[in-house]
Amino acid sequence: MTRQRLYLYDTTLRDGQQTQGVQFSAAEKAEIAQMLDRLGVDYIEGGWPGANPTDSDFFAQAPATRATMTAFGMTKRAGRSADNDDVLAAVMNAGTPAVCLVGKTHPFHVREALGIPLEENLDNIRASVAHLVAQGREALFDAEHFFDGHDEDADYALACLRAALEAGARWIVLCDTNGGTLPERVGQVTRAVIAAGIPGDRLGIHCHDDTGNAVACTLAAVDAGARQVQGTLNGLGERCGNASLTSLIPTLLLKEPYRSALETGVTAEGLAGLTRISRRLDEILNRPPARPAPYVGASAFAHKAGLHASAILKNPATYEHVDPATVGNERIIPMSNQAGQSNLRARLAEAGIGVGRDDPALARILDLVKAREDAGYAYDGAQASFELLALAELGRMQHYFTVERYRVTVERRKNALGKRISVSEAVVVVQIGGERMLSVSESMDAEGHDRGPVNALWRALAKDLGPYQAAIDDMHLVDFRVRITGGGTEAATRVIIDSADGQGHRWSTVGVSPNIVDASFEALVDAIRWKLVRDRVVPA
Amino acid sequence: MTRQRLYLYDTTLRDGQQTQGVQFSAAEKAEIAQMLDRLGVDYIEGGWPGANPTDSDFFAQAPATRATMTAFGMTKRAGRSADNDDVLAAVMNAGTPAVCLVGKTHPFHVREALGIPLEENLDNIRASVAHLVAQGREALFDAEHFFDGHDEDADYALACLRAALEAGARWIVLCDTNGGTLPERVGQVTRAVIAAGIPGDRLGIHCHDDTGNAVACTLAAVDAGARQVQGTLNGLGERCGNASLTSLIPTLLLKEPYRSALETGVTAEGLAGLTRISRRLDEILNRPPARPAPYVGASAFAHKAGLHASAILKNPATYEHVDPATVGNERIIPMSNQAGQSNLRARLAEAGIGVGRDDPALARILDLVKAREDAGYAYDGAQASFELLALAELGRMQHYFTVERYRVTVERRKNALGKRISVSEAVVVVQIGGERMLSVSESMDAEGHDRGPVNALWRALAKDLGPYQAAIDDMHLVDFRVRITGGGTEAATRVIIDSADGQGHRWSTVGVSPNIVDASFEALVDAIRWKLVRDRVVPA
Repeated sequence: MTRQRLYLYDTTLRDGQQTQGVQFSAAEKAEIAQMLDRLGVDYIEGGWPGANPTDSDFFAQAPATRATMTAFGMTKRAGRSADNDDVLAAVMNAGTPAVCLVGKTHPFHVREALGIPLEENLDNIRASVAHLVAQGREALFDAEHFFDGHDEDADYALACLRAALEAGARWIVLCDTNGGTLPERVGQVTRAVIAAGIPGDRLGIHCHDDTGNAVACTLAAVDAGARQVQGTLNGLGERCGNASLTSLIPTLLLKEPYRSALETGVTAEGLAGLTRISRRLDEILNRPPARPAPYVGASAFAHKAGLHASAILKNPATYEHVDPATVGNERIIPMSNQAGQSNLRARLAEAGIGVGRDDPALARILDLVKAREDAGYAYDGAQASFELLALAELGRMQHYFTVERYRVTVERRKNALGKRISVSEAVVVVQIGGERMLSVSESMDAEGHDRGPVNALWRALAKDLGPYQAAIDDMHLVDFRVRITGGGTEAATRVIIDSADGQGHRWSTVGVSPNIVDASFEALVDAIRWKLVRDRVVPA
Repeated sequence: MTRQRLYLYDTTLRDGQQTQGVQFSAAEKAEIAQMLDRLGVDYIEGGWPGANPTDSDFFAQAPATRATMTAFGMTKRAGRSADNDDVLAAVMNAGTPAVCLVGKTHPFHVREALGIPLEENLDNIRASVAHLVAQGREALFDAEHFFDGHDEDADYALACLRAALEAGARWIVLCDTNGGTLPERVGQVTRAVIAAGIPGDRLGIHCHDDTGNAVACTLAAVDAGARQVQGTLNGLGERCGNASLTSLIPTLLLKEPYRSALETGVTAEGLAGLTRISRRLDEILNRPPARPAPYVGASAFAHKAGLHASAILKNPATYEHVDPATVGNERIIPMSNQAGQSNLRARLAEAGIGVGRDDPALARILDLVKAREDAGYAYDGAQASFELLALAELGRMQHYFTVERYRVTVERRKNALGKRISVSEAVVVVQIGGERMLSVSESMDAEGHDRGPVNALWRALAKDLGPYQAAIDDMHLVDFRVRITGGGTEAATRVIIDSADGQGHRWSTVGVSPNIVDASFEALVDAIRWKLVRDRVVPA
């Protein structure tokens, strides 16, 4: 059977930029365009030339891509010709091989937003698309509010599509601009459009996630015959976001009925890079990746339930619908007080700690984890502390150093210039191999600002650990999370610290105490111990 | 037309607890159960009694609810009778009116995970459900991996459902346990199940979001005739999460074809509380609410595109599929100062602070809030600090006291008995009505345990505030949340403190600083100031 070609159209750089709080630089746009090109999408919508300086800069220096670079704009305004519309001219001037113009298809919007007769809107669509074609560009028409328009007046909405098609548009894109149409209805209307004579291989679909159905609406349109899919990486986009290509691409490539019936420009190798691309985008946006994201999230293949984890050990297919490696992700069996012994063994095995099935230490470790979780610890977010606990219980933990005492002071006052400042100072006394070492440190960043008691403690500790200096030199703290567990007199503070090193490792440790500084210190010490274990440092 | 009853089954407290990194305390579970009850769900699945101490504690003291409290467990194990299965006994001992048992329906799992003959699995289902019914409980059967099982051997999968139904199960729940089934297929199989004689009003649906389709799969099953919907608040749950009731409930209540055809236990008033419930759950989890979440997210009705925002001002229906007020959310137009000002006035009016429409302070407050939010403050979760900021900008803030300086020390060492202890001590210098007061305090709870630097500062401050003593005497700190905002050298710590008093008031304040102690102190001082304002204390 010949598979039909399905085209992927990415709008991360245009609709994705409409996400509240997102503002790409031109350089970031160029990097994302290159990632998309490596992934294998067919079209990259780079922005709206002329609408803002960043988009204009991006097109002026757009990277060379295999994918068709596309500029976005709107149909010409009423009362002027396509040649004389300066907004449209700015779009054309970007010189992209393809141009996508959004236009009205919903009579309510033609009346309310444009305030022109319905026939004049048809003329605008026709003239704008013809203008693109005359200039040798591949023309796409984004039919704004198409589904709502079709509900109000199907004949008019279809007439808008025909106007674009007859003027030479390569693609007619059905847009559910407000995101309110449900999948069943998207399927029905798409079938009606094809039945009315617009061929499926000229039809695209553009959905938003306002009901949590953007992916399903997109699949419903593909089921009905549409052969272009629009979306964004990580589902960025206006309001609740666009359909997530990060979710759609694996489904289209890996799952039936799509796998056998359709082909795209994404190879197995491109797909295996998907998790990395998703995480890199979040790095650019400086936000934590969504752990539960389908396919690429850190929790997407995390098996917390004891029942699931024990079956996964026998056969991963029992609780995984696809192999995590196909999308570049990995399986995680976190520790928690729901875990059983098989879960525990699997978790240890993944950390490179082999334990026999009947080792009595397994039961002791489980009991200890349960007792500590009842006291406020949380090991499924702090794998490194869990591994240290297990190594100690198995009698395999090296002894590196003992902290004899510490003292940390935070002071807030006016300095000599009358400015309010704070100063944090820490003293730490450590014993290493029989030697006693005392050190003091202030907390201070590169600009001379106080960064608080935990930073001061970290600096004093790092100073103290002379013989281990080389091992911890490239280590730094990247995140810090605190919460109160329990309540009343049972209340304790749980601190989770994320650390990273120059080799690209990232690990999390936990500390619990009614005293936040003490809890932080416990997590800090664990972070250092884990790094020493990981690097197989020999105790002094 | 009579609307059919659709039942809502919430499993936030059970499957939601399977979310990586989530671990509720029994008290948090009780609070969530009460929120769900106010929302109007029909069933609350509270956990798995006997599987861990928290779940057992929760059931031992479960709050009284209108919703049917349900315990979760699994069908009896092979080789013993239902009466003699200690795991099942622990579930029954929770004494809930309803019990939901998960069991196998997929031959592959019966072979791989249980290792018993297919017929014996049918016996286990039959005997377990009969045992629940004999003990007077409402019985639910979770058909694990039903869709995969139906693909392998439809006759066997259906035989499992019939075994449960004939033994007296009120509900048969079709579970897509691995989350890999797509909506179209969920609809087909659900129709096949009904055609095979299992009535739709005895059928439930339980989906996971591994392809980003959990909501759509659930709707597809409802379209096919299933009349119980399982899900979680905010889509918590194993791996990528369960179907989000937070997305499903508004769709089922507000949108066609569901609005006219179905009715649930959720009233318009309950629906209007949905955004608040969603945000409160994230507070309990100490995580930032997902801005793009359908219906309840902070961005769900944020109109960033210029084209959209100007049309919204003419008529909100142009770019909104539902009215944000119906779900207790609000419209945000980031670039429109006009809309910002009316929102602001409404918010101040709610706090009892009346401001004229043309007061120039409104623009100043908006600018200040925006600048401070850019610096890491978050006023959405700290209404009291927001009110203090507005009062100051309006020139209506009383001056109560000035903190001249403070110093806090945390020390960890061995005491005279050789036991490791920590001690926190704070010195605070305050000016009140021209007088300078210096006080020192240790942190210590009733049992003599150190509770850390924030507690020590609170005690020293409270000691110092002599003339205001009566007003702050019944005030205490009930919660404390910390996050890092920004990254790298821009990183700051945001502390939100919840306080309460003997009159039942509860309020939240925020502090931001690179130094966690300093951020906490700022929030503490705001907490006291707000209490003095609230009680109309006259400055000394």
